[in-house]
Amino acid sequence: MMTEINGKRLLADITELGKIGIGTDGRRTRLAASDTEKEGRDYLVARMKEAGLKVVVDHIGNIFGIWETAENKDVQPFMVGSHIDTVINAGQYDGCLGVLAGLEIIRTLQEQGVQTKRPIIVGAFTNEEGVRYAPDMMGSLVYAGGYSCKDALASVGTDGTILGDELQRIGYAGTVEPGFVTPSGFVELHIEQGPIMDATGYDIGAVELLQGIHWMKVRIDGVANHAGTTPTDMRVDAGLAAAKVNVFCRNLVEQSGGMATIGTMAFKPNAVNVIPSQVDFTIDIRNRDKDKLDRDEQHVLAYLKTLEESDKVKITVQPMTHFDPVPFDDGVCQKIERAANARHLKVRRMVSGAGQDAQMMARICPTAMIFVPSVKGISHNPDEYTTDAEVVNGANVFLDVVTELANI
Amino acid sequence: MMTEINGKRLLADITELGKIGIGTDGRRTRLAASDTEKEGRDYLVARMKEAGLKVVVDHIGNIFGIWETAENKDVQPFMVGSHIDTVINAGQYDGCLGVLAGLEIIRTLQEQGVQTKRPIIVGAFTNEEGVRYAPDMMGSLVYAGGYSCKDALASVGTDGTILGDELQRIGYAGTVEPGFVTPSGFVELHIEQGPIMDATGYDIGAVELLQGIHWMKVRIDGVANHAGTTPTDMRVDAGLAAAKVNVFCRNLVEQSGGMATIGTMAFKPNAVNVIPSQVDFTIDIRNRDKDKLDRDEQHVLAYLKTLEESDKVKITVQPMTHFDPVPFDDGVCQKIERAANARHLKVRRMVSGAGQDAQMMARICPTAMIFVPSVKGISHNPDEYTTDAEVVNGANVFLDVVTELANI
Repeated sequence: MMTEINGKRLLADITELGKIGIGTDGRRTRLAASDTEKEGRDYLVARMKEAGLKVVVDHIGNIFGIWETAENKDVQPFMVGSHIDTVINAGQYDGCLGVLAGLEIIRTLQEQGVQTKRPIIVGAFTNEEGVRYAPDMMGSLVYAGGYSCKDALASVGTDGTILGDELQRIGYAGTVEPGFVTPSGFVELHIEQGPIMDATGYDIGAVELLQGIHWMKVRIDGVANHAGTTPTDMRVDAGLAAAKVNVFCRNLVEQSGGMATIGTMAFKPNAVNVIPSQVDFTIDIRNRDKDKLDRDEQHVLAYLKTLEESDKVKITVQPMTHFDPVPFDDGVCQKIERAANARHLKVRRMVSGAGQDAQMMARICPTAMIFVPSVKGISHNPDEYTTDAEVVNGANVFLDVVTELANI
Repeated sequence: MMTEINGKRLLADITELGKIGIGTDGRRTRLAASDTEKEGRDYLVARMKEAGLKVVVDHIGNIFGIWETAENKDVQPFMVGSHIDTVINAGQYDGCLGVLAGLEIIRTLQEQGVQTKRPIIVGAFTNEEGVRYAPDMMGSLVYAGGYSCKDALASVGTDGTILGDELQRIGYAGTVEPGFVTPSGFVELHIEQGPIMDATGYDIGAVELLQGIHWMKVRIDGVANHAGTTPTDMRVDAGLAAAKVNVFCRNLVEQSGGMATIGTMAFKPNAVNVIPSQVDFTIDIRNRDKDKLDRDEQHVLAYLKTLEESDKVKITVQPMTHFDPVPFDDGVCQKIERAANARHLKVRRMVSGAGQDAQMMARICPTAMIFVPSVKGISHNPDEYTTDAEVVNGANVFLDVVTELANI
C-alpha cells in the first residue's frame, strides 16, 4: 500500500493558518512583514518546532524548517516551499498549501520511519505577493542570488515602511545569508490559480514552464475638444486610440497563443462631453515562448507607431516588469506524471501563468511545480478554493516525488 | 455708409466682464448664482442702466434690459440674449459675447437716433452652463415654459446649495414670472466653440439647426480573473468589450454623419494583472437629423446586445440627456446671410454642436443664431479666443439682423 499524508492534519493546518490575519471587516490580509504576517510566521515556526525541525531564518526573512538526521546532515539537502504572505482580501490556499504540505510530507516520513538520503528543507519565502514591497517573489529572488539582500531590505513599502526595519520589528531579520545552502532540487506544490484543470477535469498539473511576462505603461495624448462641436475628422481622441490598442492586443494573442490584458485605464479630463485628451493604461502580455513574447511586444509597439500616424495621437511607452519564460526540469515533471499515474490521478502538463517562487529557485537547482485545481479558477479572492480531496491528492503526489528526489 | 457698432466699447466690456471671477489661482469661474457671478450680474445691470434700459429680473434670475420708448412700448418686443455664467476655468467669450453685443446694439441704435418699431430686450439667462445646477440652459428652458420655475429653484447644486436660496442671497430672486413677455423673435450671437469656421475661413455662421443629443451611461460587467492564468477563450473582459463599443461608435458615425464620444471611462478593479470585472462609461451621440440620431442610438443598443452574446458580458444602459435636434427659423438665417454678404463677410450655414439658450427660445418664437469663429475651436478653456475683428464683424451683422427684425 502507498504511503499517505495525514489529510486531516494538513487541512486543519491550512484552516488554522487561514484564520490568521482576518480583520474586523472579515477580510484575510497578511502583507509581508506586517503584524498579521508575523502571527502567521509564528504559527508556522511553532508547527516546524513541534515536528522537530531546525528552524533557520535568513537575512531577507525567509524561514526554513530543516529535517536532517545524524546520517544525512552532511548531504546536500532537497528543498520544498512556497510563501505565507498574502494579497489584500486573500484566500487561504495560495502559497500556504505549498509550505504546509511540505511540512506535512516531513511529518509523514517521520511517522513512517522513512529516512531519506538527503535532508529535506521546507521554506517559506518573504514577500512573494509583492503587495507591500516591490518586487514580488522577493525572498526567493534574493535567495537565488538574483537581487541584492541589501537593496531588498531597503525597499520602501506602499505604507512608507522599510522592509528591513519591519523584519527587525517583527523578529524575523534572520541570522544566515540568503542562499546559505544550494539544494539538490526544488519542488513547489501550488494551486493553479486558473480555470484550466477545473474546467478540463484534471487532478494534478506537472508544471513544465512558467510564462514570460512583459508589462508596459502606455500614455496616449490626444486633444481635449467639445464632443458636440468637433467634427469626427478633426478629432484626436486618445480614448478611441486606447480602445483600438485593446482590440488589437486581443486579436494579436488569438494568433500568437499568448495572453494580453489591459487591466488599468484612466481618461482625462473624463467628462461626458469632452474628447479625452490623455489616456493612461497598462498592457500585460504573456507567452510561454520567449520568441513569441518578444514578437508580440514588437507587434504592439509597431501598432502604436501606426496609431500615431492614423489617429494623430502622441504615444509614450514605459517598460515595467519584464520576465522571460522559465522552463522547469523535465525529469522532475516526468516524476510528477509517474507519481500521479501510479495513484490513478489525471495528470497533465501545465504552464504557470502566475509568477512563483519556483521560478527563482530554478536559477540554482532542478525545479518543477505541482498544481492542484482551483475551483472556477478563482484566486486572490476569499472564494479561492481547492477541494479537500484535491488538496490531499496533490500532497500525496508531492510526497511521492519529494521522497524519490530526496533519495537520489 | 453702413451703421457700425462701437467695437472698442464692446471689446472693453468683454474684457471688463472677463476680469470678474478670476481667482487667486488665475482661473476664471463664475458658476450660476455664486458670489463671482453676482459680481458679473452687477456689472451687466450697471451697464444696462447706464444705457437707460429698464432692468427686470424674473423668478429664475434671468436679467432683462428693456429698451422701449413711448412710441413702441405697447408693441410686442424683439429679444436677443445669451448668458454670463461660466464653466470652471472658462474663457471670456462664451455667452458674454451675446449679452454684451446685444447691449452694444441698443447703445448704437440709441446713438444713431434710430427708433425701431419694436422694443428690444437683451436677456442674460440663468445657469446656461449647468455646472453648479442641473439641467443646463435652465433659465431659458424655464422662460420658454419647458421646466417649472419651482422645480428649477429647488435644484440642489454640486456644492449642496439650493438655487432658490442662492438667488435670494445674491439679490437676484426677481419680481416677474419667467415668460412674462413672448418676444416676436430671438437671435443669439455666440462663438462657434468648434473648429469649423476657423479651419475653413468663414467669418459668419448662420446657425440653422442645433444638433440632437443623446447621452447614456453604460455599465459592462465581466469577470475579474488573473491576467496570467486565464486562457483567452475563458475570459470575460469588460474592458475589451468597452473598447469594442468605442470603435463601433466611431465606425457608426462615420457612416451616419453624426458624432459619438466616449468621454468617461472607469475600470474595476483597475489592476495591471486582473481582467476588468466592471467598466463604466458614457456615450454621447449627436446628429443634426432626428431620425439618424434615433437610428444611431438603436444601432448602439443593438450592438450592446450582440456584445452580451459574443463576449459573455452583462450590459446595463441608463439613458441620460435626450434632446431632439432643434431647427432654427430659415427666414432669420436668410437675413443673417444677406447681412453678412452686404458687409462682404464670408458666411456659411452652420449646425450648433453645443446646447444653447436659443434652442429653448425657439420653442416660443422664430429664432436663429449667429456664430463667429473660435480660433482652433477651443472653448470652455482660458485659451478660448475670437479675434477682435471677428467679434466686431459678428456684432455688426447682429446689429443689421436685429434692426431689420425689430422693424417688422
